[in-house]
Amino acid sequence: MDVIVGGGVVGLSVAWRMAREGRPVTVVDPAPGKGASYAAAGMLAPVSEVTYTEGPLLRLGVASLRRWPAFAAELAADAGFTAEGGVARAEARALDLRADGTLDVAFGADDMAALGELAAYMEKLGLPVERLTGRECRRLEPMLAPSVRGGLLAPGDAWVDPRRVTAALLAALERLGVPVVRARATGLLYEGGRVAGVRLAPPSSDQEPEHEPEHEHEPEHGPGEVPGEARGEVRGERVVVAAGAWSSELAEVPVRPVKGQIMRLRSPRPLLSRCVRGTVHGSPVYLVPRGDGELVVGATQEEMGFDTKVTAGGLYELLRDARELVPGVTELEVADVVAGLRPGTPDNLPLIGPSGTPGLAYATGHHRGGVLLAPLTTAILLGEESELAALCAPGRFREIS
Amino acid sequence: MDVIVGGGVVGLSVAWRMAREGRPVTVVDPAPGKGASYAAAGMLAPVSEVTYTEGPLLRLGVASLRRWPAFAAELAADAGFTAEGGVARAEARALDLRADGTLDVAFGADDMAALGELAAYMEKLGLPVERLTGRECRRLEPMLAPSVRGGLLAPGDAWVDPRRVTAALLAALERLGVPVVRARATGLLYEGGRVAGVRLAPPSSDQEPEHEPEHEHEPEHGPGEVPGEARGEVRGERVVVAAGAWSSELAEVPVRPVKGQIMRLRSPRPLLSRCVRGTVHGSPVYLVPRGDGELVVGATQEEMGFDTKVTAGGLYELLRDARELVPGVTELEVADVVAGLRPGTPDNLPLIGPSGTPGLAYATGHHRGGVLLAPLTTAILLGEESELAALCAPGRFREIS
Repeated sequence: MDVIVGGGVVGLSVAWRMAREGRPVTVVDPAPGKGASYAAAGMLAPVSEVTYTEGPLLRLGVASLRRWPAFAAELAADAGFTAEGGVARAEARALDLRADGTLDVAFGADDMAALGELAAYMEKLGLPVERLTGRECRRLEPMLAPSVRGGLLAPGDAWVDPRRVTAALLAALERLGVPVVRARATGLLYEGGRVAGVRLAPPSSDQEPEHEPEHEHEPEHGPGEVPGEARGEVRGERVVVAAGAWSSELAEVPVRPVKGQIMRLRSPRPLLSRCVRGTVHGSPVYLVPRGDGELVVGATQEEMGFDTKVTAGGLYELLRDARELVPGVTELEVADVVAGLRPGTPDNLPLIGPSGTPGLAYATGHHRGGVLLAPLTTAILLGEESELAALCAPGRFREIS
Repeated sequence: MDVIVGGGVVGLSVAWRMAREGRPVTVVDPAPGKGASYAAAGMLAPVSEVTYTEGPLLRLGVASLRRWPAFAAELAADAGFTAEGGVARAEARALDLRADGTLDVAFGADDMAALGELAAYMEKLGLPVERLTGRECRRLEPMLAPSVRGGLLAPGDAWVDPRRVTAALLAALERLGVPVVRARATGLLYEGGRVAGVRLAPPSSDQEPEHEPEHEHEPEHGPGEVPGEARGEVRGERVVVAAGAWSSELAEVPVRPVKGQIMRLRSPRPLLSRCVRGTVHGSPVYLVPRGDGELVVGATQEEMGFDTKVTAGGLYELLRDARELVPGVTELEVADVVAGLRPGTPDNLPLIGPSGTPGLAYATGHHRGGVLLAPLTTAILLGEESELAALCAPGRFREIS
């Protein structure tokens, strides 16, 4: 049996794809879906994200985005989410998957130059982008600020609601009979030089989920359902560490927490018809419209250790930058503000695959791309993607040191 | 019996002072303490408040502030709040009453001129103020922004925690055996040309308090404890409408809701030792430090009708202006953001005393001054303050129309 440590989008996706293939699997997480996935905006935007990153991550993102429509359709079906009409497209809608593109806008001459360079790079790679004037940007998105001077449309970029994705994954796991042990894994069990399972923290108040649990689609498993759980352990032939920012507490991985504060606004009618992003006061900000009128504003990037406080400064930056992009956000109600911890790595690429230790594998270090890269991550772990797997091989850090 | 409609600081204070004198009284409110008093910052600052107002309100404020120390001490004692040492000063501390003054600061030449005029006016009235340079301001409050050019210290200004005040008032009423009927008054009962009580709304879900109820010190009274309550009414010889912004739903008073959004930050150690206020981008902002490290940032003033949504724009203004005054707020955790409705009147003065209708009196229209003016309001209603009563006489609006 595989033991997946971590119940975020990555860990749950791995468990779901394994269970689908008939492989026995157990998930261990004190509060599934309430970590970084709970705070995530859900942008599936490898093209516009490349502004702030480089080639290998772009390749991973493009490959994973291509997998998302089928992944979402199969997930919605497995979860039993109501399909409108029963076709794959409608099932995907249950996760609020939309592929209406990202519009990256520029305010000043520097921004314009940066977008121009990005466009040239994209065109060289054969990725579809459209250069737009300020007027063309506002024709697409009339609520944009008058000060927007131009933009770049990545028409293939998409987004999804990560909270619906984790809810669907938990529902699918329940239907497939996969146990989800609600406990914290505190360490690895070894047996004959192999990792043979995880130790669990005793139940206590510090295992409470940080956020209000949503009870829909969450199966409950009391102690004892999984063999060994009553003794404070879960045993298996392989442990997959998918614990995000907390992975370094279990295994020797160069993963650090990168704090992100994010805000959800409530809009009586949609202000935007696609994702909009821009660089304001030197920091990137994005706005993601949901089907239910919610508008997500994200996100700060802070190196603060394991701190998940919502701060005055974080909120201020989000509000200031969102107003610069779309002044109309001022009127919207503040529905929710949370902080999450992204699992950052030294080269911004994830660690996916076998570790150096027998019986131990990783699916962590996804930084800002956990939701986007979840389908590709499962494919790599299941051996369906060998070329891209090399980019994510955990061994690359061992060789350096 | 008197029926007090409204369980904010004003209504509860009136009920408490009456009950103390042995007069039978009942309070009617669907969620006592959860209206404007819940959102209030609790500044007892008649001197610095006068910047934005005029003479009569200043007289009321100064007179009421003088009553606050004894009022607080008696209230804390009646509430049974633990007294440290048993002296009045310690009892007042239970309400977080502090009298360390308000520092009103200026950034630009216009602000400096306005503070100068205010200082001259205060000195003419014989009210103590001190003019300070920017350096002197920062000596008093080292966390102030370097851009502060000067200030005015009102050393007599004070503040109190309004949530502790309502909790104390509810506890005192319980100890005095005063019923608090948790229902909405929907109309007045008449009998022989007199007001003879109030009709109650039937219990329903829309009577839920807007905020999480705090159960401490809140007595519960089921239907039937007050005669007539089971029939959906509370009868009495006199009804005192103290329903704040909602007063106009019960009686013919020129009271309108003025929305205020306010934020509470959590500080590991106090950033300020007194209240600080200033005008930033044309709007007044103030910071009120509480004994427990909380720092209150207030408040927007919006004419939005009965709307209590926390908005992106409101939050943005508070954060932006607070940062200008005290840049260090950036690091603080956001503990709480709420919106409340102040009861505004055409001349910014409250309506206190008998209405034109027999059996009906008012204690409403306190706008931004409900907490400050509560002691004076009770004194006027109990006939202990005749001169200032004239300024608040509800008849002034009848005579005009």
